[in-house]
Amino acid sequence: MAQKPSIPKGTRDFTPAEMARRNYIFDTIREVFHLYGFQQIETPAMENLSTLMGKYGEEGDKLLFKILNSGDFLRGIDHKLIEDGEYIKLASQLCEKGLRYDLTVPFARFVVMHRNDLQFPFKRFQIQPVWRADRPQKGRYREFYQCDADVVGSDSLLNEVELLQMIDEVFRRLGIRITIKLNNRKVLAGIAELIGAPDKIIDITVAIDKIDKIGLDNVKAELAERGIPAGSIEKITPIITLSGSNEERLASLETLLKESETGLKGVEELREVMNGSVALGLVADLELDVSLARGLNYYTGTIIEVKARDVEIGSITGGGRYDNLTGVFGLPGVSGVGISFGADRIYDVLNTLNLYPSDILGVAKIMFTNFGPTEATRSLSVIKELRKAGIPAEIFPDNAKMKKQMGRADALGIPYVGIIGETELANGTVTLKDMATGEQKQLTVGQLIEELNRN
Amino acid sequence: MAQKPSIPKGTRDFTPAEMARRNYIFDTIREVFHLYGFQQIETPAMENLSTLMGKYGEEGDKLLFKILNSGDFLRGIDHKLIEDGEYIKLASQLCEKGLRYDLTVPFARFVVMHRNDLQFPFKRFQIQPVWRADRPQKGRYREFYQCDADVVGSDSLLNEVELLQMIDEVFRRLGIRITIKLNNRKVLAGIAELIGAPDKIIDITVAIDKIDKIGLDNVKAELAERGIPAGSIEKITPIITLSGSNEERLASLETLLKESETGLKGVEELREVMNGSVALGLVADLELDVSLARGLNYYTGTIIEVKARDVEIGSITGGGRYDNLTGVFGLPGVSGVGISFGADRIYDVLNTLNLYPSDILGVAKIMFTNFGPTEATRSLSVIKELRKAGIPAEIFPDNAKMKKQMGRADALGIPYVGIIGETELANGTVTLKDMATGEQKQLTVGQLIEELNRN
Repeated sequence: MAQKPSIPKGTRDFTPAEMARRNYIFDTIREVFHLYGFQQIETPAMENLSTLMGKYGEEGDKLLFKILNSGDFLRGIDHKLIEDGEYIKLASQLCEKGLRYDLTVPFARFVVMHRNDLQFPFKRFQIQPVWRADRPQKGRYREFYQCDADVVGSDSLLNEVELLQMIDEVFRRLGIRITIKLNNRKVLAGIAELIGAPDKIIDITVAIDKIDKIGLDNVKAELAERGIPAGSIEKITPIITLSGSNEERLASLETLLKESETGLKGVEELREVMNGSVALGLVADLELDVSLARGLNYYTGTIIEVKARDVEIGSITGGGRYDNLTGVFGLPGVSGVGISFGADRIYDVLNTLNLYPSDILGVAKIMFTNFGPTEATRSLSVIKELRKAGIPAEIFPDNAKMKKQMGRADALGIPYVGIIGETELANGTVTLKDMATGEQKQLTVGQLIEELNRN
Repeated sequence: MAQKPSIPKGTRDFTPAEMARRNYIFDTIREVFHLYGFQQIETPAMENLSTLMGKYGEEGDKLLFKILNSGDFLRGIDHKLIEDGEYIKLASQLCEKGLRYDLTVPFARFVVMHRNDLQFPFKRFQIQPVWRADRPQKGRYREFYQCDADVVGSDSLLNEVELLQMIDEVFRRLGIRITIKLNNRKVLAGIAELIGAPDKIIDITVAIDKIDKIGLDNVKAELAERGIPAGSIEKITPIITLSGSNEERLASLETLLKESETGLKGVEELREVMNGSVALGLVADLELDVSLARGLNYYTGTIIEVKARDVEIGSITGGGRYDNLTGVFGLPGVSGVGISFGADRIYDVLNTLNLYPSDILGVAKIMFTNFGPTEATRSLSVIKELRKAGIPAEIFPDNAKMKKQMGRADALGIPYVGIIGETELANGTVTLKDMATGEQKQLTVGQLIEELNRN
């Protein structure tokens, strides 16, 4: 009996129309990466579990897809684990490989393994799928692409400036209006110093983030509830209510954090990155946001988050600076800074705003009809000329009813149809039909190429 | 303690230099696919095991990478299977997903699932990695890319002609001289009819293939050894010794197979495909080869195989026509024809013959040196102009020793260095250094763009 086929939940097929849209996004990102001198790498889909485990927290370990060992995977396993139902421990005996969970850990592994062949600063980009055994839901998939660019082996804040320029350029090209939010981990550390409670920094950023929605009094109440003493709350009130231009915010922070060396260093870094970016010109809005606490467990300096201004959706790009990417693999002291474009959310934004150019379909520009062997032979030789001129062209392979043939061009969005029948065979021409207007004209092959290249 | 990282055996990292070469191959293939009106799809890396199992023979089932079920995979499993060491049966209880083994089965599944949204004939291409738990060896990997193009829903032999044109065009662009070998399954069926032994067809093709190496007498001896009666060997001797031009071979086959309707149909199909291809012009050699028995268990018509003429390596591209791609998934009667480019072997051939163009490195065209904040700021604004003009450019992010900075451009193969020091700051110029010749000249930004665009 025939199977009714399906695909694993949380995964997707991409049809030609979807691929055309996705390629438009990936190509745009790739072109900008390339313009900025970033070089592409790829790593295997499968990594050793020893590379992946323990890098994403306990929850992350659970979300790794593990690959059953080949051959007799039962040999040598501890049967007591089975009896006791210790499936987590058992998994590491049954599996030694897992699927890539993100691009950062494989990149760190790559840098360590290839360090003698790399030029530092190493500017790499990587566009590959990753897999997570998350519960699938709207906009969250078990297989999705990440598009990462990182610079490792350089402390210079020019790298931050360049990455912000890249973000600006990608979204300018895509036509998405964005706000780039910036923060610095050192500023957050300064705030923690100020109130003597480093463990409360997440509570504070969560509270600051709510100020517009619930007002100062409620924020204060919430902070008190979370165990922050009244005196500390007073101290950070100016930070909670930070407003004005970026320069004004930086000035206020500088005053507030004047006794924290780390905090002041953070302000100085933010100022350098912001001034450098503004001097070069940004289309995007740039906003200092001290509530930004993204990736707090690994970012050590700059923190970056990008929001679409015209669509309600989470962050569509993010990044930051980290101090010790490769330490866990035995290469300490490699710092870096990177960004990651969220291709799937960008896809959703472009769909919502209908921002795709009309010419990205990825279909032939012209389809030739097929009236039988003699006409088809002539059509193929004309098509050969068109392709030589770089024009994607095809022939309907079967001598089917005209309605069916034209229907294909119409359904696929092929803009022109070429017709070679008896008349055209006799006088060496092609009749070109414009599918949008219905207009037809007889052209020589030279004229045809000119016409198609013009439109 | 820090881990010494490694990757699973049979898998590979691709460094920037390797990626540049691979992208050159993939881009070339993709461009040709596009010129011929093929549309791209992608399918998930993971498929349900029910989709994959039983499609590649018993050996293939063993070579599937299986993914351990998430969560408590022990729940509900049959412990007797564990006690009895029945690991193969147990695997299907522990795993419901596996990694894609080729692109053909996922494509068949895709066609069935999306049949109502597709236009037939459906011309699709797909470039994605596949995974096989094969024993790794030189040139054989556990993760490798396939580049497939198929036309489904059309019986026309024009599709074969077009696919041969595509093969010709891809290898013409890559500069690899090839021989395209053609056969037809129906001709092999005719030969089997001729000697009344359909089960011996593989033995016969293997023997025919050796004629040049071991001579007719030895081939005959081998056939006899394999149980083919003397009378049958005499009957097929003219086929074993088939020679002359393609047209002469076709004529001989036609005579020899005159009593097999199927055989004659095969000859007719071969003639139509070959004549159609020759009429359009092929750079490649085209050769009728009756020993070609590739994919005998699924091809039903045309069989295609491509060999590089200047490198000893297996087939670098292959394909053929199949009658019933989607039957197993409940959609009978969908026939098609396809080809698959072997990207890894093509990579090896290009490396052996050193056929890569010099400009595919994927690095910036110019690197600016960094003498400090003022110079860097000016450099960045010049770089912005260059990028606007489409020229990939970068700055050395740190104010490091000049030797180190120049060393980077040298090591990466960046052809030009831009220098902005005191003089250039003062007069608004850039000193351009040609890394190949050592030549330096001072240029305005406009002249710089012109110069870089020219070279």
